[in-house]
Amino acid sequence: MTQASNHEKLLDTYARLAVRTGLNLQAGQQLLISAPLDAVPLVRRITEHAYKAGASLVTTVYADDVTTLARFQHAPEAAFDVAPEWLFNGMAEAFRGGAARLAIAGENPALLAGQDPEKLSRANKARSKAYRPALELITGFAINWCVIAAATPAWARSVFPGVSEAEAVDRLWQAIFACTKADLPDPIAAWETHNADLRRRTEFLNRRRYRALKYTGPGTDLMLGLAEEHVWKGGGGKALNGVFCNANIPTEEVFTAPHKELVDGIVCSSKPLSYQGSLIDGIRVRFERGRIVEMTAENGQDAFRNLIDTDEGAARLGEVALVPHSSPISKSGIIFNNTLFDENAASHIAVGQSYTENIRDGSRRSKEELAALGANSSLVHVDWMIGSGELDVDGIMADGTAEPLMRKGEWAI
Amino acid sequence: MTQASNHEKLLDTYARLAVRTGLNLQAGQQLLISAPLDAVPLVRRITEHAYKAGASLVTTVYADDVTTLARFQHAPEAAFDVAPEWLFNGMAEAFRGGAARLAIAGENPALLAGQDPEKLSRANKARSKAYRPALELITGFAINWCVIAAATPAWARSVFPGVSEAEAVDRLWQAIFACTKADLPDPIAAWETHNADLRRRTEFLNRRRYRALKYTGPGTDLMLGLAEEHVWKGGGGKALNGVFCNANIPTEEVFTAPHKELVDGIVCSSKPLSYQGSLIDGIRVRFERGRIVEMTAENGQDAFRNLIDTDEGAARLGEVALVPHSSPISKSGIIFNNTLFDENAASHIAVGQSYTENIRDGSRRSKEELAALGANSSLVHVDWMIGSGELDVDGIMADGTAEPLMRKGEWAI
Repeated sequence: MTQASNHEKLLDTYARLAVRTGLNLQAGQQLLISAPLDAVPLVRRITEHAYKAGASLVTTVYADDVTTLARFQHAPEAAFDVAPEWLFNGMAEAFRGGAARLAIAGENPALLAGQDPEKLSRANKARSKAYRPALELITGFAINWCVIAAATPAWARSVFPGVSEAEAVDRLWQAIFACTKADLPDPIAAWETHNADLRRRTEFLNRRRYRALKYTGPGTDLMLGLAEEHVWKGGGGKALNGVFCNANIPTEEVFTAPHKELVDGIVCSSKPLSYQGSLIDGIRVRFERGRIVEMTAENGQDAFRNLIDTDEGAARLGEVALVPHSSPISKSGIIFNNTLFDENAASHIAVGQSYTENIRDGSRRSKEELAALGANSSLVHVDWMIGSGELDVDGIMADGTAEPLMRKGEWAI
Repeated sequence: MTQASNHEKLLDTYARLAVRTGLNLQAGQQLLISAPLDAVPLVRRITEHAYKAGASLVTTVYADDVTTLARFQHAPEAAFDVAPEWLFNGMAEAFRGGAARLAIAGENPALLAGQDPEKLSRANKARSKAYRPALELITGFAINWCVIAAATPAWARSVFPGVSEAEAVDRLWQAIFACTKADLPDPIAAWETHNADLRRRTEFLNRRRYRALKYTGPGTDLMLGLAEEHVWKGGGGKALNGVFCNANIPTEEVFTAPHKELVDGIVCSSKPLSYQGSLIDGIRVRFERGRIVEMTAENGQDAFRNLIDTDEGAARLGEVALVPHSSPISKSGIIFNNTLFDENAASHIAVGQSYTENIRDGSRRSKEELAALGANSSLVHVDWMIGSGELDVDGIMADGTAEPLMRKGEWAI
């Protein structure tokens, strides 16, 4: 088989995996895809598999890095408080009507590096605010959804800077296929086994009912309280529409909701974070009673400052996730500059909105009840990586007893 | 200058013409573009010119012939009553919020030829119904809008079937640039002159206040009553948001509203009509009291039948337009298989929704008042060509006097 036709075969397997295992798309469902323009070949294969799975209508909203950048280069100052509210409202309407959602990541991680931080901040705030109705349906797990990735030229160049663009794209696709198990003989069965492994971990953690997690490592000394009635999740999960889906492909994490007011201490990032076209690296923050009160970053400090200034909840935690340092993605040795991959190579935390599914009966509780249990609320939800081969994590019981959960980045349970 | 760089230069001139003369985009306006995927290079240039003109945000919704076709090939039977209502509702929200609209035509005119007519009919009906809120804002001229075209490979192959795809695309671009005046030294000034010419015709016709038009030609003998208080329009016009724009580039027509109940006789099409992926040719219809009561077509009869069966208004007329047989587009000798061009090469009529601007004070009148004056209402608006070098048109005065308007397809006024 030629290399090109082997790529086509893997791309098709990957597309089918996204539809069957990722979304578990149901007959009669609409599917809404968001994708970069460079992902057209993948979108076409996914669309075909979606219709074969019984989709009634597949609609793709494409993003184009060139026109995104053109706005920052040519639009007037006054433009940057505007967002496509009409489109996001339409998406929310689609989700309320039962449409599934597939997001294809692949953006240039440094697209907007060097653009005016104030314009970036205003544009991101406007976008987050306009996106809120759609985001709430996603974080509330109202419908089956999934995030996958496509190797675009700009992203591939940032991951493999020393090689030709064609080789970089090829290597990134190989890494994506490997990390998502699309290159295994039976990827769908492999995901079932993988999900069962993650479920064993979440069941253990849910039985233990830890009050907090304690992180210790170079530059990190953090006591992270967990929300009352928190639930650990990992691998696939059932959305409120009753469909069992895998919201991230790949995923190696088990995760739950921190208590938004019970986080204290210092934590450092261990991998760069790509956020809205800026690469942020070397983050060091100090929490007091759940809130970030001090922050520095070696690169992209303005972008991180803008992120945590979005609203009150953006400076507090909405997710905590444990990932072993020996995860397949971590072992690849690749820094992906993309959260979907990097967050599955390292334990991480997220500032901003928490997931309703991480609180027991979360979808049946009011916003006030969720907040009272410690769940966080924000326009944003942004993960950043704190795990490494030097990180220890303890589970703290209600009586203060500490149990080792991770040692030197590996599971101790 | 190389051929390639000359194309880039013309493409840029054309993009600027669309933004400045077509849309007359205002500072602070959002712009919503719909375009085929093959039009990405043009969309990028338009987006840049839009931001330079002060646009706050440009959002493009791409259509992909491959995935449109995949639905007909792979989706289940039950899928075809579904339309992207959420997206069209979002578009209507954007227009209500003041966004301008640019549609880039370029679809494969025969994409869906050979697909199940019943599925096509259901899909088109569902789409028309879902699109209605957005279409009403467009036909009601609520905001400045414009339709232009991009030479896509599939369209170009259908127009120039005998040559290579690359040559076909190149020739179609040349034809588009010529028909839109983008290849003139000062296209914007040329459009001002052209608009003044069209305005002189509409002013003449509006002074005469004809009660009806009488068409005579081979196979055609039609008395077409005009709506009470009808207004002839042509060239640019002012939208309700106060912006003067050119809704079609190119445009050679002067047009007004027929009376939906006062059309009698027989009329034959003179050029093929491309409608939702089907080419319809050799149409012959008989009207009685405004309604199509007999219909045949040499090709695509099912598609035309489905069109006029959409609703009550789809079998009645919503527009009548006069175009001389010697229009620049007609003289090119090219059958474009695309209404934007073909309708400007020949006098035409449209079944379906009429334009509010074609009734005096139309935007201030209720739907009931408009209907009482004879304006038509429908989910669709589809033009088809009846003009040729053998068509005579008379204007019929209130007292029955006939005045020659066109002889052998040319203006007699």
